[in-house]
Amino acid sequence: MIGYGFMGAAHSQGWRVAPRFFDLPLTPSMDVVVGRDASGVAAAARKWGWRESATDWREIISRDDIDLVDIVTPGDTHAEIAIAALDAGKHVLCEKPLANTVEEAEAMTDAASRAAARGVRSMVGFTYRRVPAATFARDLVAAGRIGDVRQVRAEYLQDWLMDAEAPLTWRMQKDRAGSGALGDIGAHAVDLTEYITGQRVETVSGILETIVTERPLLGEGVGLSGTARQERGAVTVDDLALFTGRLSSGALASFEATRFRTGRKNALRIEIAGSLGAISFDLESLNELGFYDSTLPETEQGFRRILVTEHDHPYLAPWWPTGHMLGYEHGFSHQVADLVTAIASGTQPEPSFDDGLHVQRVLDAVERSSNDGSAWTPTGS
Amino acid sequence: MIGYGFMGAAHSQGWRVAPRFFDLPLTPSMDVVVGRDASGVAAAARKWGWRESATDWREIISRDDIDLVDIVTPGDTHAEIAIAALDAGKHVLCEKPLANTVEEAEAMTDAASRAAARGVRSMVGFTYRRVPAATFARDLVAAGRIGDVRQVRAEYLQDWLMDAEAPLTWRMQKDRAGSGALGDIGAHAVDLTEYITGQRVETVSGILETIVTERPLLGEGVGLSGTARQERGAVTVDDLALFTGRLSSGALASFEATRFRTGRKNALRIEIAGSLGAISFDLESLNELGFYDSTLPETEQGFRRILVTEHDHPYLAPWWPTGHMLGYEHGFSHQVADLVTAIASGTQPEPSFDDGLHVQRVLDAVERSSNDGSAWTPTGS
Amino acid sequence: MIGYGFMGAAHSQGWRVAPRFFDLPLTPSMDVVVGRDASGVAAAARKWGWRESATDWREIISRDDIDLVDIVTPGDTHAEIAIAALDAGKHVLCEKPLANTVEEAEAMTDAASRAAARGVRSMVGFTYRRVPAATFARDLVAAGRIGDVRQVRAEYLQDWLMDAEAPLTWRMQKDRAGSGALGDIGAHAVDLTEYITGQRVETVSGILETIVTERPLLGEGVGLSGTARQERGAVTVDDLALFTGRLSSGALASFEATRFRTGRKNALRIEIAGSLGAISFDLESLNELGFYDSTLPETEQGFRRILVTEHDHPYLAPWWPTGHMLGYEHGFSHQVADLVTAIASGTQPEPSFDDGLHVQRVLDAVERSSNDGSAWTPTGS
Amino acid sequence: MIGYGFMGAAHSQGWRVAPRFFDLPLTPSMDVVVGRDASGVAAAARKWGWRESATDWREIISRDDIDLVDIVTPGDTHAEIAIAALDAGKHVLCEKPLANTVEEAEAMTDAASRAAARGVRSMVGFTYRRVPAATFARDLVAAGRIGDVRQVRAEYLQDWLMDAEAPLTWRMQKDRAGSGALGDIGAHAVDLTEYITGQRVETVSGILETIVTERPLLGEGVGLSGTARQERGAVTVDDLALFTGRLSSGALASFEATRFRTGRKNALRIEIAGSLGAISFDLESLNELGFYDSTLPETEQGFRRILVTEHDHPYLAPWWPTGHMLGYEHGFSHQVADLVTAIASGTQPEPSFDDGLHVQRVLDAVERSSNDGSAWTPTGS
Repeated sequence: MIGYGFMGAAHSQGWRVAPRFFDLPLTPSMDVVVGRDASGVAAAARKWGWRESATDWREIISRDDIDLVDIVTPGDTHAEIAIAALDAGKHVLCEKPLANTVEEAEAMTDAASRAAARGVRSMVGFTYRRVPAATFARDLVAAGRIGDVRQVRAEYLQDWLMDAEAPLTWRMQKDRAGSGALGDIGAHAVDLTEYITGQRVETVSGILETIVTERPLLGEGVGLSGTARQERGAVTVDDLALFTGRLSSGALASFEATRFRTGRKNALRIEIAGSLGAISFDLESLNELGFYDSTLPETEQGFRRILVTEHDHPYLAPWWPTGHMLGYEHGFSHQVADLVTAIASGTQPEPSFDDGLHVQRVLDAVERSSNDGSAWTPTGS
Repeated sequence: MIGYGFMGAAHSQGWRVAPRFFDLPLTPSMDVVVGRDASGVAAAARKWGWRESATDWREIISRDDIDLVDIVTPGDTHAEIAIAALDAGKHVLCEKPLANTVEEAEAMTDAASRAAARGVRSMVGFTYRRVPAATFARDLVAAGRIGDVRQVRAEYLQDWLMDAEAPLTWRMQKDRAGSGALGDIGAHAVDLTEYITGQRVETVSGILETIVTERPLLGEGVGLSGTARQERGAVTVDDLALFTGRLSSGALASFEATRFRTGRKNALRIEIAGSLGAISFDLESLNELGFYDSTLPETEQGFRRILVTEHDHPYLAPWWPTGHMLGYEHGFSHQVADLVTAIASGTQPEPSFDDGLHVQRVLDAVERSSNDGSAWTPTGS
Repeated sequence: MIGYGFMGAAHSQGWRVAPRFFDLPLTPSMDVVVGRDASGVAAAARKWGWRESATDWREIISRDDIDLVDIVTPGDTHAEIAIAALDAGKHVLCEKPLANTVEEAEAMTDAASRAAARGVRSMVGFTYRRVPAATFARDLVAAGRIGDVRQVRAEYLQDWLMDAEAPLTWRMQKDRAGSGALGDIGAHAVDLTEYITGQRVETVSGILETIVTERPLLGEGVGLSGTARQERGAVTVDDLALFTGRLSSGALASFEATRFRTGRKNALRIEIAGSLGAISFDLESLNELGFYDSTLPETEQGFRRILVTEHDHPYLAPWWPTGHMLGYEHGFSHQVADLVTAIASGTQPEPSFDDGLHVQRVLDAVERSSNDGSAWTPTGS
Repeated sequence: MIGYGFMGAAHSQGWRVAPRFFDLPLTPSMDVVVGRDASGVAAAARKWGWRESATDWREIISRDDIDLVDIVTPGDTHAEIAIAALDAGKHVLCEKPLANTVEEAEAMTDAASRAAARGVRSMVGFTYRRVPAATFARDLVAAGRIGDVRQVRAEYLQDWLMDAEAPLTWRMQKDRAGSGALGDIGAHAVDLTEYITGQRVETVSGILETIVTERPLLGEGVGLSGTARQERGAVTVDDLALFTGRLSSGALASFEATRFRTGRKNALRIEIAGSLGAISFDLESLNELGFYDSTLPETEQGFRRILVTEHDHPYLAPWWPTGHMLGYEHGFSHQVADLVTAIASGTQPEPSFDDGLHVQRVLDAVERSSNDGSAWTPTGS
């Protein structure tokens, strides 16, 4: 595993727990975690249970005893590491977003293609597809239970930047983060829409907005007379992204990604209206799916709150009895289970680098539309 | 109409509005409102649109141009008025509880029997039966949609006595109010259970509890030295009633009526678990019904939030389009519509005085059980 | 009252009920209802309790005993009637939308100005402002309880056109209805946003979409061989309107108005995120307001479900005790109470024709933006 | 760890994961899992990551390298194992219920006392205390935020026995399971009530009910003529337990434990009404706590939905960012963290065997009350 931030903790939990609940065809072994700071990464290795730590990812990639590389570093480093790993014949799991630019993402899908020809697999980490309620939503849509998709609403609402005095971190600087709410969380809303509907966003119109344009710099000093004097820097990414996309079938989907929706903490929500029914999901109630069946008698129709904790729901069989809830990190175990199973069976895991590239193109088109007065802009897919 | 308190306002609204929305076979005319205080009742007549006011109910009952008497006075006066009115050949609508004692209620049902033989109708005002969601719940149960009733939970939760310094009114004195939460709101929980299940409560075990046992007397004076001195009096009715009843089918139902459930304002709730499904209702969401259908595939089961605002739902046809909400007082229009229709067609309206008597017997049995260490006590039905 | 459709029933209920609950400085009298069809309007008069019916609105406007004209006809007739009535010195209540075009609306505001100079009042019927929870939301925002508005989400979701075989009525024809979801329900979302925030939408970018482009014509015949043959006609208005607006303060608001949101019946929802808190409202739960207070300790923050049924909540005092729900039509009584009070006190009632004109300009700008590839378009306010 | 059923999987997950997130003063090592079936327990050891497996728990208890024994066997074996382990100087974690009878539980608390004098610790596994929302509820009550407890409602609702043809397993036989819903899930409702209020249930009145009295025996054969003929056996435990308890302060608490509440899967709910506010919790929404603050202005009061996922909420600091949900098994990690910390610091972990004994006495009193016509029965505490 390359990287050891928040995502490192989540991925480690996935590698650790998946084999204890799922019957995997191969047994993963948590060999090496890699980071630039030797003592930091050594501590992470101890804490999370990796056998070794290292500071040079190139060295690790060249080792024969390593079969798979899990990339959880910031987005600007994904392309270099993933391409090198794939070319070295290692399977790759790469955290989203696939890259910070479309060009990098294209180079990565090329490498993934070359690798696939040699039986080497690659996967991008849109973990929320593996929340059982989301997977079950996809199954219902695929089975025709909501009929034709009429319209979609997808939003990812957070509020952690609400405080205008929260400091300026790298996540608010375009050169390092690529974009703000758009790429960080909007990407999930786009991927979930494409996953559940089985369609792609083909053109977009939207606007990116920075609500608080200046924030205190971190670690600033104290003025001459002892008065606190706080320097400020410009926020160069979006706090809020509002956009509309047209799907392959022609249906419209409206999107919102925001870090300023006061009171909403992690509300990735999607509602899909179809000709025969509707699906409604909110990550803040992650064990539930709303389902509306328009084929029932009119007086009996209503949104049904399905607790997605039955043995026959996706991913549920190895876990707990009905009504016992899963949490955020279970998706990472499901991701490991699916990836390992695909590798063992020689099939392409999903979401592929192609899927990741497509999301990148949507994000890029939104940014260009915003710069062009919200003009409709093709995603090139 | 005899009486002009809060219930007088609600009943007046029913008489005023029902003919404007429902096609009634007879046209009610709001003739006389009766009360002891001449100027008070005259003001009520003007405000609510009654043609006349009067102070002597006996005189009104003897008038030939009066066909129906609507009784909205306190419970201790119901028996005398209702019996006189029925014996005088007037149809009677009597607000719940039917009476303050079983004996009075029995005398009233006798009078109702005598009257019925002469084509004179009587009805008791358990209006919540006529909330469309409650009526629809009854219809679903009657149609076998939840199968056999396995167990029932019924509760009526309020919190208006939470403040221990709220003054001692007549509602907290047994000689005037009969009982506290039990008769005031527990009666609704019992009636709704019997109405929706189509069964009767046959034996009960329970406890009545006074949580705040002394309260400030109203209008008390000031001590000699000018210090406010507040006299206190004993609360002689229950603040909280907890009881369990066995229904005709043998299933158990548990009940709670309380004025101390902090944060709950008017939560008359009932949930009925059956062998094929379940029903869930809460008066604080009065346009909604929860319905769980166990005959669906296991992965698709869930409580459905049905908005009971469709044209084909009970009582809905003459009101507004789908999704436009009804409020508390609509039940009083439905009551008028049903009563007038029954009178015109020569049939017995429901709930009858017999139904009201039965509820009275349940309340009485709960009180006796409470006095007898929660021993199981038959309701005599 | 001119007109006697669905809105006629609602307005009649407002005129009938308001004086029974509110202490009005003047007593309205339900004199004449006017419609083109003599027998239809006579039946409406009888049913709803108007003293007379008539077929010529000009004649009614010329009568000395008429002080106020209530216009509930389709939008294309509003301008002519309202201007004539105002010029004749009658107070006017005009149902929304104020008119079908900006030009008509401007002529109406001119007439309203002229009339106001002579003490004659005018008001447009955005009744949802008078749902107590919405009024209370405005009060909280005005009191600074959510701080500066950061962003707004407003949507009005219905699904009554979901069935692709529902027939083509006048509401789906542009020449008669002006627009579809945009003007019918989007207008409410815009007005409620402007009302609660106290700001105006200054520029917009959006798209109008017709999801089902052809529908069966009403009353079509049967083919030669006896086979049903259904002619179809083009739907010329929008089924779905998605747009973003910039408010006076610079904050963005995103809007959705749709007749295709499967399972949503009458969900006028608004959520306003501010620097100190948030407001959340849904008309399908019309007695509730969500309120999030960011000034509380972090561990105790959460959306609060306030039952807006307290005596001290807006409009609540004359109605029922705490926890007893109001319904859809109560807003019409509140409208009557406010209008009559303003007339008696010689003040301008709100929302004014100016407010109605402004909403019309927003709708018009959305339509132009949609025709111009979602380009940002000023509303001219 | 002795035993390897469903609870074995959950406890294993606790031991495995806790050290990866919490900074523990001691590092647990997963040494031996014990079961009667050699191959079954060996498979469990491999699957869950225990170093060894064994079939004789006495042998394990005598080993010097074992410091702690975790008991997850059925209730009838708890006493023997726990007492032996404590007497052998091993710390003990024992799954709830502490025992099947009060006598056994008393012997266990005696052993725990003896052990405590020698610095050996014991703990009973009421894990739901360690759901962060439940712990936070206790903190709020302890801090006086809801004032004096006025009344409590606690219920644990499941529906897995709804199907009358579900087979007769050991859980429905009194000699093996002790009781049905009462001990299995009612015990949690009692413990959570006592934990959050800080009070004990002193007397009870209640009824135990078997709703489906006969069920098909497992593995029964086929009749002579080839027709399936299913033998049936008697269900000897309760399906439903309804009881009322009086707490130390005199307040009443009403309880329900049921396996027949159609549509409710794992709804451990508690609502505590106090003089200054209220607490509401439902395990089916385990990351949320409802809190009502009566000290706020009346128009602003409402149940607040607090997402208990802030860094400063109990147990949350080492997990994920705000808004990322925990699941069922996180409680087992919290249990391990608290137990290990208590052992290292030489303090008594909670809940103690005394706490477990008390719950046992409440269950026993309920059963005696049920057998005695719901007479009020002291719990002896």
